[in-house]
Amino acid sequence: MKTTAQPMKTASMMNPDRVLNGVNVTKLKQTVEAIRSQPEIAQFKFRARNEWDNGGHNQATVHEFFGACQEMEHKQSFLMHADEPPVLLGEDNGANPVEYVLAGLSGCMTTTLVYHAASRGLKIEEVSSEYEGNIDLHGLLDLDPKIRSGYREIRVKFKVKGDPDEATIQELLRKSPVYDTLANPVRIKIEVEKV
Amino acid sequence: MKTTAQPMKTASMMNPDRVLNGVNVTKLKQTVEAIRSQPEIAQFKFRARNEWDNGGHNQATVHEFFGACQEMEHKQSFLMHADEPPVLLGEDNGANPVEYVLAGLSGCMTTTLVYHAASRGLKIEEVSSEYEGNIDLHGLLDLDPKIRSGYREIRVKFKVKGDPDEATIQELLRKSPVYDTLANPVRIKIEVEKV
Repeated sequence: MKTTAQPMKTASMMNPDRVLNGVNVTKLKQTVEAIRSQPEIAQFKFRARNEWDNGGHNQATVHEFFGACQEMEHKQSFLMHADEPPVLLGEDNGANPVEYVLAGLSGCMTTTLVYHAASRGLKIEEVSSEYEGNIDLHGLLDLDPKIRSGYREIRVKFKVKGDPDEATIQELLRKSPVYDTLANPVRIKIEVEKV
Repeated sequence: MKTTAQPMKTASMMNPDRVLNGVNVTKLKQTVEAIRSQPEIAQFKFRARNEWDNGGHNQATVHEFFGACQEMEHKQSFLMHADEPPVLLGEDNGANPVEYVLAGLSGCMTTTLVYHAASRGLKIEEVSSEYEGNIDLHGLLDLDPKIRSGYREIRVKFKVKGDPDEATIQELLRKSPVYDTLANPVRIKIEVEKV
C-alpha cells in the first residue's frame, strides 16, 4: 500500500473554491466583502493609448490600469487596429471605431450577465448576442446640425440557455458598465497639446 | 526618341485625386455632394456578434454592415477577444470591455480630427493620445445604488503636430461619433430569447 505518496490535504483541497459559469464565486464574494470593509479598493482606472498611422488607420494599445489601490498591468499588451472600410475612405485594416464600441458593449453585457448569474447561483450554458446601431453621416459631416454624429439607437438581441428567466436576464444585462456608459451621459475632458 | 513608350494621359492622371493626411479629399467632397443630392446614402448600420466562451472570456465578431443604401462587408472578419484581468476574476485573454470602449473612443477622435482637418486643407503630421476613465465597482456590484456602473469620467490628452491650432483641434475632436455616443445618452433596446 502506497500511503506516503499521498499529498497532504490542504485547506484549499478540503474547501475548494466554488466555480459557476467559469466564475470563481468564492473569490467574487470575497471581493464584495473586501470592498465593504475597504471601499477604496473599488476604485479602478482603465486606460488606452493611440497612435495615428495614416488616413483612417490608427492603433490603440491597452496595457496598464489602476485597481485595488495599486498600479497593475495585463499579462500582455493588447493592440487594436482601427480603420474605415473603403466606402468611408479607409483600407479596412481593422474594425472601425464605432464597431469597437459595439464589441465593447457585447463583451460587457455578456460578462455582466454571466458574473451576476453566478453570484446568484444561476447556471448559464450558452450565451450569444447580436448588435446593430444606426449612424446618420449627416451628423459627422456637418450637413445637419439637428442630427447627432454618434449612434442614434442600438438594438441588442440575446439568446441564452440556462437557469435565469427572461426578466432576470433583462435586469442583469442592464447592470453592464458599458451599457450604462452608452445609455447615460459621461463627462469627457479633453486636453490638447501642440507639439 | 522613345515616344511610343509613353502611356496615354488619362483623365485621372491629369486630374489626380487630392490626398491630404492620407485622406482622399476629392472622394470625401464627392461623398458630401452625393449625400446632399441623395440623403438616404448617409444612413449606416454597424453590427457586431458575440459568443460567450467561459467566465469573463467572450469573442466579438465584426464583418458586415449597411451603408450607402446597400449591404456591405469588410475585406475580412475582425475577431475581438474580451476578458478580465485576474484581479477581476478573468484570465487576461483580451482587453476588457470597458477598455474596448476607450480604444473605440481613441480611434474615433483620431480619425475625426484627421478627416475634418483634411477637408479644411489643414495638414496633420503626427497624432497621439491617452485615455483614462474611472469606474467604481460599487456600481456594478450593487453595493451602492447612487453609484453608476459605467465610466464616471473620461480624461483625454491629445498631442498633435500639424497645421490646426488648439481651438480648432478641440472643435474637431468633439465631432467624433464615439465622443457623442459616450457624452450623450443613446437609446438601447434589448430583446432576450431563452433557447
